[in-house]
Amino acid sequence: MHITVIAGGIGGAKFLQGVRAHARTIGAEVTAIINVGDDVTMHGLRICPDLDSVMYTLGGGNDVERGWGRAKETFVVKEELNAYGMAPEWFGLGDRDIATHLTRTVMLNAGYPLSAVTEALCRRWQPGVRMIPATDERMETHVALRRDEAEAAGVDVSTAPAESEQVVVHFQEWWVRLRGRVDAQRFIFIGADQAKPAPGTLEAIAGADIVLLAPSNPIVSIAPVFAVPGMRDALRSTPAPVVGVSPIIGGSPVRGMADRCLASVGIECSATGVGALYGARATDGLLTGWLVDPVDAQTTVPGVTVRDTPLWMTDDEATASMVRAALSLGGV
Amino acid sequence: MHITVIAGGIGGAKFLQGVRAHARTIGAEVTAIINVGDDVTMHGLRICPDLDSVMYTLGGGNDVERGWGRAKETFVVKEELNAYGMAPEWFGLGDRDIATHLTRTVMLNAGYPLSAVTEALCRRWQPGVRMIPATDERMETHVALRRDEAEAAGVDVSTAPAESEQVVVHFQEWWVRLRGRVDAQRFIFIGADQAKPAPGTLEAIAGADIVLLAPSNPIVSIAPVFAVPGMRDALRSTPAPVVGVSPIIGGSPVRGMADRCLASVGIECSATGVGALYGARATDGLLTGWLVDPVDAQTTVPGVTVRDTPLWMTDDEATASMVRAALSLGGV
Repeated sequence: MHITVIAGGIGGAKFLQGVRAHARTIGAEVTAIINVGDDVTMHGLRICPDLDSVMYTLGGGNDVERGWGRAKETFVVKEELNAYGMAPEWFGLGDRDIATHLTRTVMLNAGYPLSAVTEALCRRWQPGVRMIPATDERMETHVALRRDEAEAAGVDVSTAPAESEQVVVHFQEWWVRLRGRVDAQRFIFIGADQAKPAPGTLEAIAGADIVLLAPSNPIVSIAPVFAVPGMRDALRSTPAPVVGVSPIIGGSPVRGMADRCLASVGIECSATGVGALYGARATDGLLTGWLVDPVDAQTTVPGVTVRDTPLWMTDDEATASMVRAALSLGGV
Repeated sequence: MHITVIAGGIGGAKFLQGVRAHARTIGAEVTAIINVGDDVTMHGLRICPDLDSVMYTLGGGNDVERGWGRAKETFVVKEELNAYGMAPEWFGLGDRDIATHLTRTVMLNAGYPLSAVTEALCRRWQPGVRMIPATDERMETHVALRRDEAEAAGVDVSTAPAESEQVVVHFQEWWVRLRGRVDAQRFIFIGADQAKPAPGTLEAIAGADIVLLAPSNPIVSIAPVFAVPGMRDALRSTPAPVVGVSPIIGGSPVRGMADRCLASVGIECSATGVGALYGARATDGLLTGWLVDPVDAQTTVPGVTVRDTPLWMTDDEATASMVRAALSLGGV
């Protein structure tokens, strides 16, 4: 059996731990198609936060307490960069993490595509699932903010056209520096129009026995994957069932800032809201099944089979149990 | 008064500490023209060992015990790079050092010339002397080795033409990895033909009251500076006296591997040998004065005034005293 998962970030990494655990018990192979919209170049280093979160977590090298980055991390390089006055100071670049970015940057500059680089990095981490970035092209999520609100929050608005009432910042600046406190007007996936699905992604979707949408942020983790032309069509045309797992439990995100992201695009922060956003395959959407938490058992999404199971990813076993329920919902 | 110093490496850095100390007592300004032949790009980072040695030493950030690199250095990034199998493993890249290289690389990639980058880095370190790289162009010292000897020492000779009896390696590979144990056939300053003196260097030589050649390695620290077209002419045409300080005391280098470098080009490892290599300005060479240690008091270089003074740079005061003797020898 082949399970393909669309995922991003920390939530995706935790979910994939459960997928891997369950896949091992049933002898299934797992392909994870990972969001690249969070990617950013800082200090000349190509940083892929979602790929790294998944790789470190599945490879046992993540910091469980802090929730991101490497275990036993040190921050000597960052401290020194600050001493040189190298902006931006707000991004948490650990020394161990920097080695990953250096390795990636050297390989990218040598001409290897991101998917090949990811494969090379995974030879060290042995994540136990096949990890593929959504695209090899550079595609980065940016956030449009109201100019006055951005300026009040300390954003450099000098480069925005004088007549514009909006400024656009990289997702990382909005997420990490501003902590999402300035309302997002919209999200823009810069480079998406030129992006192509990375080698292996379309095949992994077409050839899957089931496709799972991880309980990742629907707006900034899952949507950018489908912003890659061809990816959405692949999901709609695969013979496999497509089961989504709700990232919202009882009206709140399991983790992160999905509530702020959903609000900015006018989607209700609920299992129903996100289910409707993904939509039913029968009506131009993606889902055949939608897995929600028991507190959201009343959820309905027209054309989609909704089932409930506990969605708190407290440990691998709990998460594997979610995955079992998702597979069951997909009829596999 | 303006003192201009041609220098490279650790020996140059120590000498410049003495120059700075003496310049402070007499109210002189110091310009240091620094060798870039040791520069190398590793892991995508532009590394300038001589510029950094001088900058860290004069800025009080050098490791006095180890003799190179930063004080309180850690090696987390390097350890991680090794875990990724990133070659070369033999180069000691510390975390603090890496921040310097990252800052430099970002600025170079943004289009700033090395001289401007050096000035920017020095705003942090405040070395107290004006530091200028010999050239803004990329010019790197390479070493030709006998193919059979190189292969026996573990050098990858597969990229050398099959018919060639020599292979060429970067100076750092010969110096750090091979520790100079394979005989150098010759030194090649790759890029020298396209190099131009960095802004300010020719003016600093022409406008100096005295030019000093630091007791740095004559073959791989001083010679590459003069390999930059125009630099030698500037030294020969300046109205200022040019006083060299011998890096050899009693037939041995003060530090480093000048003996191996000199042997490879057939120069005797002695104050006389190096003095003759630099030569007298009157006879197509560079020197008006040559400062040697008392053990080498019998040294003669035709056309050059030779004087002796203790040349062991045991502390800033001893070195400042050498500088005072050099200035006196130059008649300033």
